[in-house]
Amino acid sequence: MAERVAGPEIERLIQLLARLPGLGPRSARRAALHLIRKREELLGPLADAMQVAHSQIVTCSSCGNVDTVDPCTICADARRDGSTIVVVETVSDLWALERSGAVRSRYHVLGGTLSPLDGVGPDDLNIGNLVERVSSGEVKEVILAVNATVDGQTTAHYITDILSHTQVKLTRLAHGVPVGGELDYLDEGTLSAAIRQRTTF
Amino acid sequence: MAERVAGPEIERLIQLLARLPGLGPRSARRAALHLIRKREELLGPLADAMQVAHSQIVTCSSCGNVDTVDPCTICADARRDGSTIVVVETVSDLWALERSGAVRSRYHVLGGTLSPLDGVGPDDLNIGNLVERVSSGEVKEVILAVNATVDGQTTAHYITDILSHTQVKLTRLAHGVPVGGELDYLDEGTLSAAIRQRTTF
Repeated sequence: MAERVAGPEIERLIQLLARLPGLGPRSARRAALHLIRKREELLGPLADAMQVAHSQIVTCSSCGNVDTVDPCTICADARRDGSTIVVVETVSDLWALERSGAVRSRYHVLGGTLSPLDGVGPDDLNIGNLVERVSSGEVKEVILAVNATVDGQTTAHYITDILSHTQVKLTRLAHGVPVGGELDYLDEGTLSAAIRQRTTF
Repeated sequence: MAERVAGPEIERLIQLLARLPGLGPRSARRAALHLIRKREELLGPLADAMQVAHSQIVTCSSCGNVDTVDPCTICADARRDGSTIVVVETVSDLWALERSGAVRSRYHVLGGTLSPLDGVGPDDLNIGNLVERVSSGEVKEVILAVNATVDGQTTAHYITDILSHTQVKLTRLAHGVPVGGELDYLDEGTLSAAIRQRTTF
């Protein structure tokens, strides 16, 4: 453990910063000093932005996204196609898809994946809400955009099961060669999928 | 540039986090989501800690350290040896020496090094204040604990020059093999210094 090297206020700042992903004790000290050096341009505004985020950010009761309004901007956007729901594991996956510009429909954030070993069951995920949204009748297609991991695929199968009695179309993301990817570096599973799901020129 | 993927409050938080050393745009997004997920345990307390730091932290008018009191805790500590001043480049160097426990005297933080190429002259550093402290008469020794870089050594020589008319003893850190260091990986300069400054068993 690092010894106390500064006053309790600075120490507390360092300890809290060290809990951010990507920052360890050493880089948290560097970040704290950077903030202190840039008191007016960075520390003050960041403190304000965090206060605003803390007091205003809520989880969307419909889709599980985070925003300052409930329902969130995406759920409230009438220009979006409400007949398709893209199911993602986390808000960062939602952000990644939004950045790609590939999705102009609505989302549903599960908040994780089923993981019996970690004690995560269906009730710990935002699944009941998804069944409700699908049952409302407006939804025609559910795209299961979960990660291509064991837990992700288990979760996808579970959701497929519980939605099987509905009329909704269930689809999943294509497997294949990433854009810019080199075949030599790809695993066999990806290559097999890319061959099987080949498309015509 | 990343597209806007969330509300303006979250975007602002991400942009400010991305200005921390060690965090890029991608890790800033991850950090922001982590903060939002842990609203009560982390986001709130961190926002408060930053507000406290922003409103209370000042630069010590004597030594240039940062603290919530002026003079800082170290300058105000009567148990510390006021006859020796350890001159460091930055507050992080001061913290590093404090963690080592090697210093029980006072410090002086220059706030950088002389660097004509970057337009940093003596007036940009906390040097005038050092001359004043030395002139007060209490100081017997000044340890120049600057980095062993060209800029650091240039700065040390400059300070040696302007303090040469005083009676104060000027010393610098020993060069040598780092504890745990392997000779094979050390540069010739360090090895020569370690041989020249060898000590008896």
